[in-house]
Amino acid sequence: MMRTVKTVKEMAKIRGDLCKMNIIGLVPTMGALHEGHLSLIRKAKKDCNIVIASIFVNPLQFGPKEDFKKYPRDLEKDSEFLKLAGCDILFSPQSGDILGKDLGTSVHVEGLQSVMCGASRPGHFDGVCTIVLKLFNIVRPGNAYFGLKDYQQFVIIKKMTDDLDMPVNIIGCPIIRDRNGLALSSRNAYLSKDDYTKAVRINKALREGSRLAGLKKLKAGEITALLKKEYLKGMKTDYLGFYDADMLSLFDEKKKPSGKLVLAGAFFVGNTRLIDNIIIRI
Amino acid sequence: MMRTVKTVKEMAKIRGDLCKMNIIGLVPTMGALHEGHLSLIRKAKKDCNIVIASIFVNPLQFGPKEDFKKYPRDLEKDSEFLKLAGCDILFSPQSGDILGKDLGTSVHVEGLQSVMCGASRPGHFDGVCTIVLKLFNIVRPGNAYFGLKDYQQFVIIKKMTDDLDMPVNIIGCPIIRDRNGLALSSRNAYLSKDDYTKAVRINKALREGSRLAGLKKLKAGEITALLKKEYLKGMKTDYLGFYDADMLSLFDEKKKPSGKLVLAGAFFVGNTRLIDNIIIRI
Repeated sequence: MMRTVKTVKEMAKIRGDLCKMNIIGLVPTMGALHEGHLSLIRKAKKDCNIVIASIFVNPLQFGPKEDFKKYPRDLEKDSEFLKLAGCDILFSPQSGDILGKDLGTSVHVEGLQSVMCGASRPGHFDGVCTIVLKLFNIVRPGNAYFGLKDYQQFVIIKKMTDDLDMPVNIIGCPIIRDRNGLALSSRNAYLSKDDYTKAVRINKALREGSRLAGLKKLKAGEITALLKKEYLKGMKTDYLGFYDADMLSLFDEKKKPSGKLVLAGAFFVGNTRLIDNIIIRI
Repeated sequence: MMRTVKTVKEMAKIRGDLCKMNIIGLVPTMGALHEGHLSLIRKAKKDCNIVIASIFVNPLQFGPKEDFKKYPRDLEKDSEFLKLAGCDILFSPQSGDILGKDLGTSVHVEGLQSVMCGASRPGHFDGVCTIVLKLFNIVRPGNAYFGLKDYQQFVIIKKMTDDLDMPVNIIGCPIIRDRNGLALSSRNAYLSKDDYTKAVRINKALREGSRLAGLKKLKAGEITALLKKEYLKGMKTDYLGFYDADMLSLFDEKKKPSGKLVLAGAFFVGNTRLIDNIIIRI
């Protein structure tokens, strides 16, 4: 039986009462769950005795012109999904309960935010980190699971957790895609039929980029230019580049690469901002 | 028998092995211990099963022109003091062990730093909060003890802890003074005999300020001007004022006070910066 907990106080109490021997897995989400989220629940289920999913549409991680208000919310449907996936506790606090009257503390991770989504969404990752840290303190999980679609988020949360000596293992899980290769995202719900036809080209572009990088004939900048021209017409590229997979620095042919790159991008298809990435071992 | 632990890894391991039923009290210090620190240990001893003191001279909380290098350090003497006071574990990590190779995460508490020490020591409290948060995550205490001499630090750490939902009680303990009323501080070691004669006037000034505030005949600004003229000659006042004890906003006669004020100041006696305060119930 899945238990639903709606207040920070009750969640903290339940956590306090849990036996120390339990391995607790946390899957933090913003709801509007899809197979990507459920894959995290299933992975947590394998690793842990108790799986806790949180659903909280975090206002701090949305910019003033972003889609906080229209972000899809369907707690009832999400709750059913989680039950079926074997989640033990759903933690779905109200906004005011998490934010309090005057949340004045924020967490900042320096050095990993000047590129990719960080560059176009100022303050986004501070908002993510602050709320994730609060969730970690309330739930005190041993493991926390994040999808690698938000690759930069994964790297930043891992860095925050290491830097702050939090006793939590951050576990990144593979991107789940639909049958046309589109990375699953709650924001896919915004796509018109026409948008969708465009959106499926994103992953095709990244795979072609990965292939071209493997051939080592073109420079990184030449590859991304080619992808934009050949695959990504009809959408606005927010960013697209090859980055060091650990440091997130833009790949530089002149420097020795550290072993793993990520080819990552964000694209506006109509008004919908979609992200995707592919890891490249070099 | 007091145990001394010198690495983050060992401390985290010991903490993990401690039974959940223990109440763990943490007394974070920068060493150069005096009776003020020992009063925190004794208070923790009363409240908790296990008392852990940390000694770490935190470079992040010193400004570039401040006294990080010359800050007094005497681990052997401190260790003896702690043993005598009944401390169970001394955690004295190396600087690199706490800071890591590239600590990039910082914690900021908004709104309480624009006055008092925050105004004259930019970045100071971010440095304090970041390291205190790390210590909390390593030691995971139930209670943490701070002296009220660093009144602003106490308020900011309490705010951080509440904001981040950390399961730690922040306990402020009374200022300990020498027989002439000077608040005990590791920095008192810097004072020449002549400096000391001046320094003892600080507490006299604050007590007179509290008395005058009680008479309600003078405005706050008139009282602080009088104190500077009558008591605080021969030293440079960094700041001196009446502040709301919770919000740390400068007291304003036009607004209704929230119940408790703190008359707080920082003063340069020679090159030594000393702080002191007195709580005023109104």
